[in-house]
Amino acid sequence: MPPQRATLLQVAQRAGVSRSTASFVLTGRHLDMRISEDARQRVLRAAQELDYRPNLMARSLRTKVTRTVALISDTLASDPYAGKALHGSLAAAVARGHLLFIGESRGDPIIEEKLISDFLDRQVDAFVYASMFTRQVRVPPLLRDRPVVLLNCLTRSASPTHHCLVPDEYGAGVTAARTLLDAGHRHGIHLVGKVSEHVHAARERLAGIGSTGARLAAPIECEWWPDSAYEAVSRALRGGLEPRALICLNDRIALGAYQALLAAGRPIPDEVSVISFDDSDLAAWLRPQLTSIALPHYDLGWQAVETLLGPPSEPAVHRLPMPVRLRASIGKPRFE
Amino acid sequence: MPPQRATLLQVAQRAGVSRSTASFVLTGRHLDMRISEDARQRVLRAAQELDYRPNLMARSLRTKVTRTVALISDTLASDPYAGKALHGSLAAAVARGHLLFIGESRGDPIIEEKLISDFLDRQVDAFVYASMFTRQVRVPPLLRDRPVVLLNCLTRSASPTHHCLVPDEYGAGVTAARTLLDAGHRHGIHLVGKVSEHVHAARERLAGIGSTGARLAAPIECEWWPDSAYEAVSRALRGGLEPRALICLNDRIALGAYQALLAAGRPIPDEVSVISFDDSDLAAWLRPQLTSIALPHYDLGWQAVETLLGPPSEPAVHRLPMPVRLRASIGKPRFE
Repeated sequence: MPPQRATLLQVAQRAGVSRSTASFVLTGRHLDMRISEDARQRVLRAAQELDYRPNLMARSLRTKVTRTVALISDTLASDPYAGKALHGSLAAAVARGHLLFIGESRGDPIIEEKLISDFLDRQVDAFVYASMFTRQVRVPPLLRDRPVVLLNCLTRSASPTHHCLVPDEYGAGVTAARTLLDAGHRHGIHLVGKVSEHVHAARERLAGIGSTGARLAAPIECEWWPDSAYEAVSRALRGGLEPRALICLNDRIALGAYQALLAAGRPIPDEVSVISFDDSDLAAWLRPQLTSIALPHYDLGWQAVETLLGPPSEPAVHRLPMPVRLRASIGKPRFE
Repeated sequence: MPPQRATLLQVAQRAGVSRSTASFVLTGRHLDMRISEDARQRVLRAAQELDYRPNLMARSLRTKVTRTVALISDTLASDPYAGKALHGSLAAAVARGHLLFIGESRGDPIIEEKLISDFLDRQVDAFVYASMFTRQVRVPPLLRDRPVVLLNCLTRSASPTHHCLVPDEYGAGVTAARTLLDAGHRHGIHLVGKVSEHVHAARERLAGIGSTGARLAAPIECEWWPDSAYEAVSRALRGGLEPRALICLNDRIALGAYQALLAAGRPIPDEVSVISFDDSDLAAWLRPQLTSIALPHYDLGWQAVETLLGPPSEPAVHRLPMPVRLRASIGKPRFE
């Protein structure tokens, strides 16, 4: 059994004052209410001796503020990135004196509605609505007219109805192309990984690359996983492809590309340069270490909660920069 | 502004019944209170039309139950595993109709005390006290006499004061050794990774390996990271070592060992077999795929919350099995 909580009345009785005097002292209104310093000291001592803990839930019934934030995500499991966004959200919430609930809808609108309903029953003040992969969403009806910020997702409407925090994928595409152009690459640059119209990140990155004037050779299509990338790059090399640089759409693809290049005896970066997106832990573990453009998941989480709990402002889409982490996988083109 | 919440009185008025009749219907006491089916139907319809939401916080002031669990961890950030334990905890909490708060102490007792105090102010019912790495802990004074289960940590006392959920590291050591023995390995088995008395997992695994009678050759000492493992294994190979099998203390070490063996032209598993602990995503991405003994993080999280919210029982240490994931990195010894 949890220890019984001391009541305000018990504190007042021990201090020899009225209940309202004790309340004024413990809520910092002793100056307004002209309470003697002696009485104040007695109340504080009694509160300490009884381990008095103001009942925040009773107080929140009056003030309607619980200082809690709920983060609702489609998934929290499958990717270490989710953990980083969560961590950023948690740090920002705590910095603003709030506690963080988490919930996972698994993309099921019925689970989502139940979850939001449960949070509303506990009078959660504000919500972060998050998606694992950047995509367009419809804000659930139960959350309309409440404080909500979207993390890694966008609304469908032309002008944003909520603050949206997303990675600047277009800018990341520009950075990838410029990094190769700056190293002297002009020819034999291949994109590795399937680009689908439905995948926001891929579409935006490709547009960003295109904007630099960089010319891409035939793409090497594969799923965004190491084994698929290994098969696709190996097949291309066996078919006589002589790539000078690979732009891999994530670090897992880059791992598969590394394995294929190594197996075919094409050293990185002497014969083939590789650049990637994510900057996951893996990037620094590969040999040679992989140059990768970082997804700012911690910052997305932090900024989402900061925007939610900070001063109100007009809804806007915030595109967070994706910085390049230069490592050892890019060299000068060998045959130019 | 959030929409104004419909009150019980409004529901009662709309249904044309008294406030207490409405309350009896909505709390399922209509049979005890002999309320007519007609009145019941009117109350339910009115509640639906007004989107009535019972104020769980007001109710919890009476019942002293908020149906919330807080997971307090030293860190939630640095490792994808934390995410899996969190995910298991969340799923179990939701399955039992609870919501989950999370908090991170960063190992600082002052932050931890503030955090627990904040959770207590919100009348959290029960606590999971978690550690990123398996270790002995002291349960914080504020949590004494409250429902607490330890996740991935143990108490210092001889007989457990709380339920503790930890991976069966000793059993994992037995499994690692047996897997190699079953493949025919007797000689040239090296442990890769530094074993310290302070690292519970390493100590237990080594004891488990020892219990099988497997004889280990000289250990290859390194930090538990790919680059350190790469350097150490490369140095050993240059020094003339002819290992037949490596037991790597985690998958990151195995990645470094793979890189060193590949660079030295020692094919896996034809010349050298490799087994590891963790079964992280990486294990299935390596070529050949890595046989690894899984850390049951999701199960630890799930079981911790199940134990916390399930029927009360005597405190005990629960060691969760670490199953081996057999893949392609173990072969028969070549030279025997």
